[in-house]
Amino acid sequence: MLNKKIAILGGGPSGLAQLRAFEAARLAGNKNLPEIICYEKQNDIGGMWNYTWRTGLDKNGEPVHGSMYRYLWSNGPKECLEFADYTFDEHFGRAIPSYPPRAVLKDYILGRIDEEAIKKYIRFECPVRWVEYDDATEKFTVTVMNHKTGEQETDIFDYVVVATGHFSTPNMPYFKGVEDFPGRVLHAHDFRDALEFENKDVLMIGSSYSAEDIASQCYKYGAKSITISYRSEPIGYDWPDNMEERPLVTHFEGNVAYFKDGTSKAFDAIMMCTGYLFHFPFLPDELRLDTHNCMYPEHLYKGIFFHDNPKMIYLGMHDQYYTFNKLDVQAWYARDVILGDKAIPNAEERLADMKIWQDRHQALDGSDDQNIDFQADYILDLLATIDYPDFPVKAQGELFKQWLRDKEEDIMGFREKTYASTMTNTMATELPAPWLEIKDDSLESFMSLDFVEATVD
Amino acid sequence: MLNKKIAILGGGPSGLAQLRAFEAARLAGNKNLPEIICYEKQNDIGGMWNYTWRTGLDKNGEPVHGSMYRYLWSNGPKECLEFADYTFDEHFGRAIPSYPPRAVLKDYILGRIDEEAIKKYIRFECPVRWVEYDDATEKFTVTVMNHKTGEQETDIFDYVVVATGHFSTPNMPYFKGVEDFPGRVLHAHDFRDALEFENKDVLMIGSSYSAEDIASQCYKYGAKSITISYRSEPIGYDWPDNMEERPLVTHFEGNVAYFKDGTSKAFDAIMMCTGYLFHFPFLPDELRLDTHNCMYPEHLYKGIFFHDNPKMIYLGMHDQYYTFNKLDVQAWYARDVILGDKAIPNAEERLADMKIWQDRHQALDGSDDQNIDFQADYILDLLATIDYPDFPVKAQGELFKQWLRDKEEDIMGFREKTYASTMTNTMATELPAPWLEIKDDSLESFMSLDFVEATVD
Repeated sequence: MLNKKIAILGGGPSGLAQLRAFEAARLAGNKNLPEIICYEKQNDIGGMWNYTWRTGLDKNGEPVHGSMYRYLWSNGPKECLEFADYTFDEHFGRAIPSYPPRAVLKDYILGRIDEEAIKKYIRFECPVRWVEYDDATEKFTVTVMNHKTGEQETDIFDYVVVATGHFSTPNMPYFKGVEDFPGRVLHAHDFRDALEFENKDVLMIGSSYSAEDIASQCYKYGAKSITISYRSEPIGYDWPDNMEERPLVTHFEGNVAYFKDGTSKAFDAIMMCTGYLFHFPFLPDELRLDTHNCMYPEHLYKGIFFHDNPKMIYLGMHDQYYTFNKLDVQAWYARDVILGDKAIPNAEERLADMKIWQDRHQALDGSDDQNIDFQADYILDLLATIDYPDFPVKAQGELFKQWLRDKEEDIMGFREKTYASTMTNTMATELPAPWLEIKDDSLESFMSLDFVEATVD
Repeated sequence: MLNKKIAILGGGPSGLAQLRAFEAARLAGNKNLPEIICYEKQNDIGGMWNYTWRTGLDKNGEPVHGSMYRYLWSNGPKECLEFADYTFDEHFGRAIPSYPPRAVLKDYILGRIDEEAIKKYIRFECPVRWVEYDDATEKFTVTVMNHKTGEQETDIFDYVVVATGHFSTPNMPYFKGVEDFPGRVLHAHDFRDALEFENKDVLMIGSSYSAEDIASQCYKYGAKSITISYRSEPIGYDWPDNMEERPLVTHFEGNVAYFKDGTSKAFDAIMMCTGYLFHFPFLPDELRLDTHNCMYPEHLYKGIFFHDNPKMIYLGMHDQYYTFNKLDVQAWYARDVILGDKAIPNAEERLADMKIWQDRHQALDGSDDQNIDFQADYILDLLATIDYPDFPVKAQGELFKQWLRDKEEDIMGFREKTYASTMTNTMATELPAPWLEIKDDSLESFMSLDFVEATVD
């Protein structure tokens, strides 16, 4: 283990999970830890959870990482993302509702971080410029731009952990005539404040989580009408009166969108909720994962280790139901490999293992329920061999399924539902008012609400 | 000259000037031309002159190059940017007004390009990922991402010509409270359509050409009010009634901006016209120009050759009055050096030459008139030793001075002025209506207007 050195690219949830995994080993008395440098593009930890008012390029001219918007609340129950080694009870000291706003969740996510201990590993405002691997020395060369000094830094590493996320680079299709649309055309990545669309007729293209959540935000903050245009299937919720779904846009003429069903409507703004690209401009072909948002990306052994070069580690590249605790499990597993406590099998065995999971996923019907079970089993497979605290993965999976049913029942009201923690059994409290009526999403404002003890059925 | 190979990074006005310079040599019978590959991020030639509806990141996830907006008209007289080897008369076959819209100017700029001959040098959708220089071999290694194939390409070159422009990466300062502003906050780079701001109270920050032009656009297309906030000096034009200038913003509270003079005003949108960063994320420190928009960037011999490595060539890095013909002169000069027809002097002599120009610029009073003369002399210095057709540089400089006076006289009407070509003496025709009333800026629409023969004073 002598003199091993690892680079972690990104200080968001994935990168922090990796740092935390090593920190846990250090606290457990491990004396043979590698040297770690974490390079972060932003000026703070938290990745996507740092709200930024900027869009497009950041103050250093780098693509803005953040896709979060004002007034964002968790779109899934907090009980499904609870860390096994740091519960909501431990953080807040009391029960809170199941769907907190962004600032509250961020407070929790960062709450378990010993910032002093963790930040000393991180170089902020250091986007990665280029990574190379030398077959002869079996080392990586990582070059970053340190915007604080205005100079680049180059260092040599034994492992590279890619923790840069995959919700930052918009996938933005072209529709005929969109170039002449006389209003704002934006991707969900650049959406910041629903108040910009107050009293406007807004067209959302796409039927992703982004589409349904941003549509709901726009409804909540007073858009005049919201039309969601879907490619294959409508989202199908029971939307309020001024919201509707239509099939895909065929083209635009001026401010009018034409849809596949022959209908048309004039709009003030177009928002494309058309997903994200996996984008690693700092990686050469031979190290670069080429995938899309799916349940089990190809070429990643255990969903983590790049098949062509297993010292190239990718965290959080799956489509996600499970989030933070899945990242933890991946990071703990990767740590054990880096520490030499676990071996990476040979190429043939890796291929065989990946094939088992790929085949298994192929056999699913594509339903959320089956995907949730699949992801739970993936997590359990990793969890079985690491010292991360056991947690009720399957029970959280059942909560995900309940969450989907709750959304089905009331898309504008599901955030008023409450669930019990699978870790502590603490029942979440109820919001004191409907979600649609609570418009201040700040940490202070939310935590000062009079939460109501949930009535048990 | 055997087997020399050059990379041109960018196929906009600068890159095209370089390609055109070599093409001119080829047409003149030169048989010893280097092999040329031009890498272009977009899918067409024209650089900034390609209007794109996209903002932020492009379809390949790369930062959008374009900062052009709909309804943009030339903000300077076309007679000041006329190519010496391709006149407006030759292109249009008749006189046209002095301030044409973007599409008309683009048609002219690309008109002299033999697209078939030129495009064979260009690889489109190939943003540059990384450039290295090997002191031992004295060659550059250039790696690009070919988004058409999904694979990277790496090649070795004797010279690299950086022609990527410097109006693509926003400089975006922070103002206290801007993160809570409940409306759109954008940089001029992301401005596309003034109609988005119809009936809105718009705050522009900055007193650049962008600020004055976008403010004028917003006025023309019906903004309710426009407030321009300046750092040091107001632009000072005689603005229409619903436009005004105020000193710098100190902070925001909600939708209200507070200014240094103690006043405040509520706004619907904030547009920062705060300039651009020189941004070369694909270059290592030892090859990277570190400058800002100024009349004579440091470390560039003849304003072209990077002092630390003169085989690293930068085009168009000056702040500009002169534009296309200055790029031509730089490109012709660089071509002669690459062809071995001109020598690059030793470091000491280069430093001495740069110092002469720097000192001379230091001694100026900063006025437009003196800067114009300075840039004219810079062009004449290069022009004296190349075979680019002579053109009346000083006479064009006088036109620039006249243009500034015309703007002073009537900021909303100066585009109705006409000037004579310094190349052909052809007098521009007059617009048939005030600029404020001509709202269709397409090539077809503009060219079908009944231009009026200018009355000679």
